[in-house]
Amino acid sequence: MSLRLCAVGRETTKQLLLQRLPAYKFRVDAAWKTRSRSQSTTATSPKTIFSGIQPTGVPHLGNYLGALREWVNLQDNATTDTTLIYSLVDLHAITIRQDPKQLRQWKKESLAMLLAIGLDPNRSIIFHQSDVPAHAELMWILSCQASTGYLGRMTQWKDKTANEKGSSEKLKLGLFSYPVLQAADVLVHRTTHVPVGHDQAQHLEFAREVANGFNHTFETDVLFAPETIISPAKRVMSLTDPVAKMSKSHANPKSRILLTDSEEVIRSKVKAAVTDSIDGITYDPERRPGVSNLFDILYHADPRRNDHDQAELVKDLQGSSMRIFKDRVADTVNAAIKDIRARYEDLVHDEGYLQDVAEQGARKANESAAATLREVKNAVGLA
Amino acid sequence: MSLRLCAVGRETTKQLLLQRLPAYKFRVDAAWKTRSRSQSTTATSPKTIFSGIQPTGVPHLGNYLGALREWVNLQDNATTDTTLIYSLVDLHAITIRQDPKQLRQWKKESLAMLLAIGLDPNRSIIFHQSDVPAHAELMWILSCQASTGYLGRMTQWKDKTANEKGSSEKLKLGLFSYPVLQAADVLVHRTTHVPVGHDQAQHLEFAREVANGFNHTFETDVLFAPETIISPAKRVMSLTDPVAKMSKSHANPKSRILLTDSEEVIRSKVKAAVTDSIDGITYDPERRPGVSNLFDILYHADPRRNDHDQAELVKDLQGSSMRIFKDRVADTVNAAIKDIRARYEDLVHDEGYLQDVAEQGARKANESAAATLREVKNAVGLA
Repeated sequence: MSLRLCAVGRETTKQLLLQRLPAYKFRVDAAWKTRSRSQSTTATSPKTIFSGIQPTGVPHLGNYLGALREWVNLQDNATTDTTLIYSLVDLHAITIRQDPKQLRQWKKESLAMLLAIGLDPNRSIIFHQSDVPAHAELMWILSCQASTGYLGRMTQWKDKTANEKGSSEKLKLGLFSYPVLQAADVLVHRTTHVPVGHDQAQHLEFAREVANGFNHTFETDVLFAPETIISPAKRVMSLTDPVAKMSKSHANPKSRILLTDSEEVIRSKVKAAVTDSIDGITYDPERRPGVSNLFDILYHADPRRNDHDQAELVKDLQGSSMRIFKDRVADTVNAAIKDIRARYEDLVHDEGYLQDVAEQGARKANESAAATLREVKNAVGLA
Repeated sequence: MSLRLCAVGRETTKQLLLQRLPAYKFRVDAAWKTRSRSQSTTATSPKTIFSGIQPTGVPHLGNYLGALREWVNLQDNATTDTTLIYSLVDLHAITIRQDPKQLRQWKKESLAMLLAIGLDPNRSIIFHQSDVPAHAELMWILSCQASTGYLGRMTQWKDKTANEKGSSEKLKLGLFSYPVLQAADVLVHRTTHVPVGHDQAQHLEFAREVANGFNHTFETDVLFAPETIISPAKRVMSLTDPVAKMSKSHANPKSRILLTDSEEVIRSKVKAAVTDSIDGITYDPERRPGVSNLFDILYHADPRRNDHDQAELVKDLQGSSMRIFKDRVADTVNAAIKDIRARYEDLVHDEGYLQDVAEQGARKANESAAATLREVKNAVGLA
């Protein structure tokens, strides 16, 4: 059963969404080979796709529709020679203070969720970043190439210093230097393609510059400047403040739908979603951000979205009452995540399986990263 | 023979200086055990001594008299339950641009020199920093604790920005963040004592604060705030510019005596050393820095220094001509390093032995560091 599941390819996601598969836990495959260097050095070489998510809580609908579902799509539509690497970037999670017990729990939950949405640990490399020392090792080596001036001009750093009234005095080094770790995350696997949101585009450009700078300085081609894959997915906004992005860190839990939310909870959150007092249902993100956000959610959460035009959906619903519209949103969201939720509940309690998956992922990711780091050290003269 | 050499303890250094031992290469001992945690957690627990040197060329007399000879003394006088860890800190060497081929060669030469001066790889852990990933891993974790404000106030960073006319724009991140790597170097081995020069005292104080801050934040005692061992050795000044420290990076090779210099070369460098035109030989560092530096070298290079007072030596020599004085300096320096030089020449060509020593050192250092990192990750919630 697990073999059939691996083999169905591009249909997998839809199937997973439409039916509860009894054997969705993939057998952890011990035999895995590092792709050889020569595969990756030519322009026509196979792709390596890398992306990461912080294990800081159960992902919400925005994470899923905006990024995680795309990870599964990329996996299921990849050519057989494509390497897919997905990381739970716990080293990034600690740039802000975390409760250790909570972080440990979140790491486990996040891994369970990546499996629950349909990532296959025999097809994709799924690992905790802190299990692969080469990320931090390459980060240090790249720290000796990256200028403090460039880092200081990063938008996110400027925002943070602005929050501290212009002084960076009390800010931790990790908040300043983490784009170099992000660059290392991508470069240590000789990634060719990175699916990114718009808010990460600047950091990927930084990674490209670091890679090119390194290669130029050391007269080598060991690092690859990766390309971006701009996700076709829509940015999902907060239910309670629909001009802001749906976020894990928002104080109000009603602002977001978690992938673990029950049908009842989903229904109540959608019901309470901020809309407006204008009559009827229309799509107008400028004037009606709340209603338009629900439209986007409805459209993007529907597995048949590729067969329909969003404009048609708007036409269908224009005569509905807000109650009927919201019911339909809740139904569709629940249908989209109910199998994920069920699989997650099962997986998160299977500590042995999660540990096997984490160990297999760490082993594969270490092999991938060690191969690059060896060549980097050689180029620099450390080895 | 090698066993006897290990057993002689405090006499070893003197013996090595006074006679050429035929079997000074220590047998690489495969059986080594990590000291248990419990050994290090109480106030009365055994010492762990850590120090590092950049592998950026053959050490000079200043390195030897100022630090490296002290490493050997510490080794030879340590109680049996003391752990000694000496690192060739190649990750620090790359904060400035290095030629890769040159760095590779220097790493080999530096390791050969540590053995040539009398460090015993079966007694002390001798390793290349880049062979132990936990240094960079702990550095990242500590980066999330260390404030940018504190780092920006470090004297060496301020000096560097001053050299760039006050702008840090072009300076590399590694030049800003390396005190955190230094802290990790020391803390990852739960070092209790660090022999430091005066110019490193500020960085060790930073390491102490980082350790205490980490323990406080995570309510743990996993990191030790190490104590300093202030070396009794004298700072050796440049032969050509005796108000500046003898340095590897000075443009004029005549400014320093290398531990590989032949008797002839030593004699010619001492002969060319800058003194003054005042008659006679007196010790007056303020008015006669060149002559006084030669006095210091003469006194500190003499293996019998502990049986004599420096004032006596000054009295002995006050009637000498500059020629006779310089001859005596050259003779004494040559006597102090001639066996080191001979052993070095032999060792540096024994690639197999050097590789064995590096591998044994890496294995021991990895065990020591991994034990700490495991507990740090636990404390933070990464594991």
